[in-house]
Amino acid sequence: MIGVFDSGIGGLTVLKALAEHFPQENFLYLGDTARLPYGTKSPETIRKYSEQVMNYLADQQVKALVIACNTASSQVIETHWQKLPVYTVIEPGAQKALRETKNGRIGVLGTRTTIQSAAYPLSLEKTATAEGRTVETFSQACPLFVPLAEEGLVDDPITNLIAFRYLQPVLQQGVDTLILGCTHYPLLKKSLQRVCGNQVTLVDSGTALCERLEKDFQNGVLKKEVGAEAERKIKALSTDLSPHMKSWALEILNPLQIHEFHSIDLV
Amino acid sequence: MIGVFDSGIGGLTVLKALAEHFPQENFLYLGDTARLPYGTKSPETIRKYSEQVMNYLADQQVKALVIACNTASSQVIETHWQKLPVYTVIEPGAQKALRETKNGRIGVLGTRTTIQSAAYPLSLEKTATAEGRTVETFSQACPLFVPLAEEGLVDDPITNLIAFRYLQPVLQQGVDTLILGCTHYPLLKKSLQRVCGNQVTLVDSGTALCERLEKDFQNGVLKKEVGAEAERKIKALSTDLSPHMKSWALEILNPLQIHEFHSIDLV
Repeated sequence: MIGVFDSGIGGLTVLKALAEHFPQENFLYLGDTARLPYGTKSPETIRKYSEQVMNYLADQQVKALVIACNTASSQVIETHWQKLPVYTVIEPGAQKALRETKNGRIGVLGTRTTIQSAAYPLSLEKTATAEGRTVETFSQACPLFVPLAEEGLVDDPITNLIAFRYLQPVLQQGVDTLILGCTHYPLLKKSLQRVCGNQVTLVDSGTALCERLEKDFQNGVLKKEVGAEAERKIKALSTDLSPHMKSWALEILNPLQIHEFHSIDLV
Repeated sequence: MIGVFDSGIGGLTVLKALAEHFPQENFLYLGDTARLPYGTKSPETIRKYSEQVMNYLADQQVKALVIACNTASSQVIETHWQKLPVYTVIEPGAQKALRETKNGRIGVLGTRTTIQSAAYPLSLEKTATAEGRTVETFSQACPLFVPLAEEGLVDDPITNLIAFRYLQPVLQQGVDTLILGCTHYPLLKKSLQRVCGNQVTLVDSGTALCERLEKDFQNGVLKKEVGAEAERKIKALSTDLSPHMKSWALEILNPLQIHEFHSIDLV
């Protein structure tokens, strides 16, 4: 069973990508919905919440911890937690963006805390240097994207307008690749691609993480489940479960099913 | 010292109204910023958080508890907590709206949880019946208003557009009074008044609460402070304090000063 952690339900975009890519793996998702959003909070608070969630998932006997939340990823530097391998979204996203870009100009969109952490530019710089390449990054905090996605305004004139305002300064820098540095942003992909035009490649965390985990399955760091696809289970937990949140969660994951979905108390 | 509680910094609009109206009173404000927003969470979670905050404020020897947060107010029915008088914003807001309306048609704007609780329509109905009047209410959840206010987009074309979408159905019902049922909404007053036109009266919680407390000061339920105005203190606590939040908080309260501002751990 692979543990997937997000501040809310946006991380289900990552869970969906993983569950489709690894159809035999069991997943345990935990959305810290009672305390979302993380992206506007201080590094100390995000770190504290992340540790609580990682400890909880470790207690559930998961074999790996996936931190789907970009904001939490930006505050967790450990590669292991309670001896479990930890996968954050930053490094895989940065590596994928570097494979995609042709002109070495990469835009990074994220929450205010993710952008302030500079986690993506640092990771891009590090990887590019190791490969003997150069890269220029242009970051933009997009704090209204999360509530727009949470409200389901995923393809709406209002979203287009806000996307235009956020993206314009980054696009003017001539980027050809844009990292969607928040699990919610893939939900707004239609709007974002419309504003960017098709010449800009959008990189989302889910796809990048699949490639990263695939590598560790192949080199034996992670053990594959061997059961039948029909028997694999996806369980979801959240620290708060309002009816709006539940129906939105099921919609994001569709056509995949959640076999169990209930709320828990973390503190 | 009067304790004022909100899920975040929006409640500072209420604190400001109270502090200006009662210039000799000391205030202790607590914003549960680590867990905001409350408005999208379930009633059980909001109730639990509210109890934790009320217990904390009671321990600080406040003489009264003001629940500035509409969402929290909708889940607290007690008139006393640990023997302290509790003031929520629902009843004062409803009573003020009934005094303002001429045609008995009142609109209520709020978070999803506040609107689903039907706290305002029930309170309006109860007060109107007691006065031998009739009232018709039209409610509208406005979930994007909080992030717009938190982002400081208080007078912006984007806010006008979103306000127009939320308010149109309510205005079409011919309301002449609109309850701003969330502490953040007074920050968007310019946009809202522009969309409503001047014939619609906007009722905010702060002003309504001042009238309510004034009554209890006059009838002796609350004891007045007798010190000099120059000596009164306003302290603010928050469960998370990011730089963005702090500067935005000071801006809301301006020209009033916060004498102490630090973060605390509630759990």
